[in-house]
Amino acid sequence: MEERLAALEARLQRVEDELAITRLVASYGPLVDAGSADEVAGIWAEDGEYDVEGWHMRSRADVHAMVLSDGHQHLIAGGCAHFLGPAHVTLDGDDAVAVCESLLVRHREGAFNVRRAGANHFRLRRLTEGWRVVHRTTRALDGSAEARELLAGAR
Amino acid sequence: MEERLAALEARLQRVEDELAITRLVASYGPLVDAGSADEVAGIWAEDGEYDVEGWHMRSRADVHAMVLSDGHQHLIAGGCAHFLGPAHVTLDGDDAVAVCESLLVRHREGAFNVRRAGANHFRLRRLTEGWRVVHRTTRALDGSAEARELLAGAR
Amino acid sequence: MEERLAALEARLQRVEDELAITRLVASYGPLVDAGSADEVAGIWAEDGEYDVEGWHMRSRADVHAMVLSDGHQHLIAGGCAHFLGPAHVTLDGDDAVAVCESLLVRHREGAFNVRRAGANHFRLRRLTEGWRVVHRTTRALDGSAEARELLAGAR
Repeated sequence: MEERLAALEARLQRVEDELAITRLVASYGPLVDAGSADEVAGIWAEDGEYDVEGWHMRSRADVHAMVLSDGHQHLIAGGCAHFLGPAHVTLDGDDAVAVCESLLVRHREGAFNVRRAGANHFRLRRLTEGWRVVHRTTRALDGSAEARELLAGAR
Repeated sequence: MEERLAALEARLQRVEDELAITRLVASYGPLVDAGSADEVAGIWAEDGEYDVEGWHMRSRADVHAMVLSDGHQHLIAGGCAHFLGPAHVTLDGDDAVAVCESLLVRHREGAFNVRRAGANHFRLRRLTEGWRVVHRTTRALDGSAEARELLAGAR
Repeated sequence: MEERLAALEARLQRVEDELAITRLVASYGPLVDAGSADEVAGIWAEDGEYDVEGWHMRSRADVHAMVLSDGHQHLIAGGCAHFLGPAHVTLDGDDAVAVCESLLVRHREGAFNVRRAGANHFRLRRLTEGWRVVHRTTRALDGSAEARELLAGAR
């Protein structure tokens, strides 16, 4: 009985971990398009990194500043969707990897256009406050080998 | 032992609730693009509402009529995808909120185009027949503050 | 006590099955865009089929050959995203159905465009090595009744 209970607890923990990570990744697009700087920054660990084509953020504060930047504020004032697909999660104890593709759709003068398709690779860690992103890399799917290697993490 | 069992049951219930809601939201796009009026209407509670830019449906019957409307039938006869992203679910007992972004992609004369990016906010309730939508609000992501506020619910 | 444990085990198994299938489907887009032929082929059963508009693959080897084909290699060398939405899963013991919509986004000369919206219907089976696809059908959402019928499986 004790053994079966312990096995159930371990299996349920893995399920909860996977769901917590898919929820965290699913919150990024809506929150960044809402302009919710505190909440977006809170997806990362205090010293978490976000490396996105020529912009390498190295802390929660850097991510917070990105959301409040003129560039991002201009984007959301005009209308945009950072549309992330369902994350593929691989658990490894207190570490995890999540991989998904993304589209950036932008509104301008009454029309919507896909401005970029991207490859996203997240490394996450279980902290006392829950799962947080320690490193995210995003690259445009423009045929580069680097972008394709990020996607290969979904195995 | 009893305590551990009860704790497991409560945790598993939350997991099942979250999955039931993500499944319900994930069924909307396929079913509405299939033109399955009964099944789309069945996503809502009997008196559930769907408020989408100038069209405020106030019952399952209203949602059913929307699927059968000339406007929607014309859309699916030409080809379209109401493409919803992964829902971010927040549970609160027998109530829940789900937030996701969406794209409307339309086929015309051999070409596919993004016609709209949208913000979606669902309020759901656990009824005897399962989780159902009691209120959905959808707004175009055209820079309006209203659309951004809907997305901010994904925290 | 024994009864409650057994009930928990059965419920948890269903949750794990649903998550395993959503993970499997979520891996297709990233892996096919990465060009990971072995891993993409491994999503299917040995004699699994993939029927996609005029191309009917009838084995893991056929799927492997598709990933390595000139057509697909040209596509990923230029940049593309096979962007699948969240899968709606229906379990039936050791069989399951998953339905989702998809977008094919292609990069060319610095611009990204939606080239196709598709309807996807997967039949899966639990094998000794885990859940695998036994039959996938994909059709363009160009208004055809066949594509709409595939989506109607998300009920």
